[in-house]
Amino acid sequence: MKILRRADEVAEWSEAYRTAALSVGFVPTLGGLHEGHLSLVRQARLECDRVVVSIYLNPAQFDSASDLDHYPANLEADLDACREVGADIVLVGERTDFLPEGFESWVFVEDLVRKLCGTGRPGHFKGVCTVVTQLFHVVRPHRAYFGSKDFQQAKVVSKMAEELLFDIEIRLLPTVRSADGLAMSSRNERLTEVQRAASTVIWESLQAARELITGGETSVDVVRESLAGIFDKTGSCELEYAEVLAAETLRDFPDGVLNLDGEGVLVALAARFGDVRLIDNIQVTATDASGRMEEAELEIDGGN
Amino acid sequence: MKILRRADEVAEWSEAYRTAALSVGFVPTLGGLHEGHLSLVRQARLECDRVVVSIYLNPAQFDSASDLDHYPANLEADLDACREVGADIVLVGERTDFLPEGFESWVFVEDLVRKLCGTGRPGHFKGVCTVVTQLFHVVRPHRAYFGSKDFQQAKVVSKMAEELLFDIEIRLLPTVRSADGLAMSSRNERLTEVQRAASTVIWESLQAARELITGGETSVDVVRESLAGIFDKTGSCELEYAEVLAAETLRDFPDGVLNLDGEGVLVALAARFGDVRLIDNIQVTATDASGRMEEAELEIDGGN
Repeated sequence: MKILRRADEVAEWSEAYRTAALSVGFVPTLGGLHEGHLSLVRQARLECDRVVVSIYLNPAQFDSASDLDHYPANLEADLDACREVGADIVLVGERTDFLPEGFESWVFVEDLVRKLCGTGRPGHFKGVCTVVTQLFHVVRPHRAYFGSKDFQQAKVVSKMAEELLFDIEIRLLPTVRSADGLAMSSRNERLTEVQRAASTVIWESLQAARELITGGETSVDVVRESLAGIFDKTGSCELEYAEVLAAETLRDFPDGVLNLDGEGVLVALAARFGDVRLIDNIQVTATDASGRMEEAELEIDGGN
Repeated sequence: MKILRRADEVAEWSEAYRTAALSVGFVPTLGGLHEGHLSLVRQARLECDRVVVSIYLNPAQFDSASDLDHYPANLEADLDACREVGADIVLVGERTDFLPEGFESWVFVEDLVRKLCGTGRPGHFKGVCTVVTQLFHVVRPHRAYFGSKDFQQAKVVSKMAEELLFDIEIRLLPTVRSADGLAMSSRNERLTEVQRAASTVIWESLQAARELITGGETSVDVVRESLAGIFDKTGSCELEYAEVLAAETLRDFPDGVLNLDGEGVLVALAARFGDVRLIDNIQVTATDASGRMEEAELEIDGGN
């Protein structure tokens, strides 16, 4: 595994791979690697001839200096993990490498960023899009891998890649979860024991929302209130937002009536446990709902 | 010469060129080709194995619908001209090809666009940067060619290409002028005879500014007032701006005292002749000034 610290070295390797007709998979990360990231690298390993991972704690996607400073960084552990899952190249960037003093060229996506994390974190997605653009230019992957926990980020990057005519397939893979449902996140290790115990409310409330929707509930407000209600009963945390949106466009449902046809429903939330902000989401589709209905029918049959 | 109407066809050719280790030169245009454009294609022809020209009347870089609608378009003449100077591929884009309904991914450069044409045309450079990014992704050139008449545009694109880590050399070539000094522009043909005669004021005033600066004038205000004065004496036109800036950074000189050391001085103006807006500029460097001083010394010597 090559550990490279300069973008132009990575670009040279990438060009050599392309010239040799080898496909390149790319997993951009902020470091603090966990099973979620590693699942992306494993999938890239399955689908591509060569796999590039970047570890760059992008300051432009943090709105809070404290969040940036507390982001877990253990480069040796990250590199060991990359080696173990078979990365070919790891690009390790220093904070100022991609965004030097006086930097002024930015990439952003207008509409998709107005919801969810875009509301409370105004510069966040501009920071993501800009650095992902730079990394795409350096790595020139055929496929890039993103996790569903950061669903909006993946949608924004997909939109950007499609519209700016990057010739890159954006692959969105499932969220990896602990046994109790908590989505893997580098920030989880900053939770106190009490907060960690309370954090199961996230998965619990999302599952309750899924139950409601597959059970036939069509009111966005009812689903949101159910989520908020479950959080209200839990100490040690504060719900920042809970949204029920069309999954592809991240738009509100007209008149607050959700609709499983077509793109399906995204239920997404952000919550604070002390100064640790966690996000999670689920998608509910017509197939989920019909599965649920079949289940119900089976139960009825079984009861006969 | 291949005339291609789909971006993905161009991308395939460009990838084939790269795989064959052929260098690619790129000249993006809005159509309405004149000697200025053709000088860029000729230079690309000299420096690169393959030359791609794009003809795409980018609606996002026009702030006025009337300017867009009146932009000269004669595709057959443009294609003939490209053939004559030896282009290998011409990408012909329809208005909605690059910016379809609902488009929302944009690229912009913050600081450089606050001056000159950025002031009166707020969305202009965002439109340029976005479509140039798309074209760069499709064509993947080794070198891209821009003319000095649109000096600020070339600076903005250079900054963007450098900061977003495009691996593309931006080549800035001299403005091509008519015998009377008027810079070649597709818009020139919209001038009436009277306006065309008046338009020599642009070159006259820029030459007067050069004389002043190489003669030792260091006051930005004096140079600007000289330019404005020459325009005031001319009918059929209106000066929109006349600026004297540091040529690399497009920044104002501190305390209005211009300085030929280092990056040199940009004198740039925009003027309206009826509804036709023309821009032009010159750069003045320390070498120009010392040339002028040597000339003066020779005159003194000659006088002895």
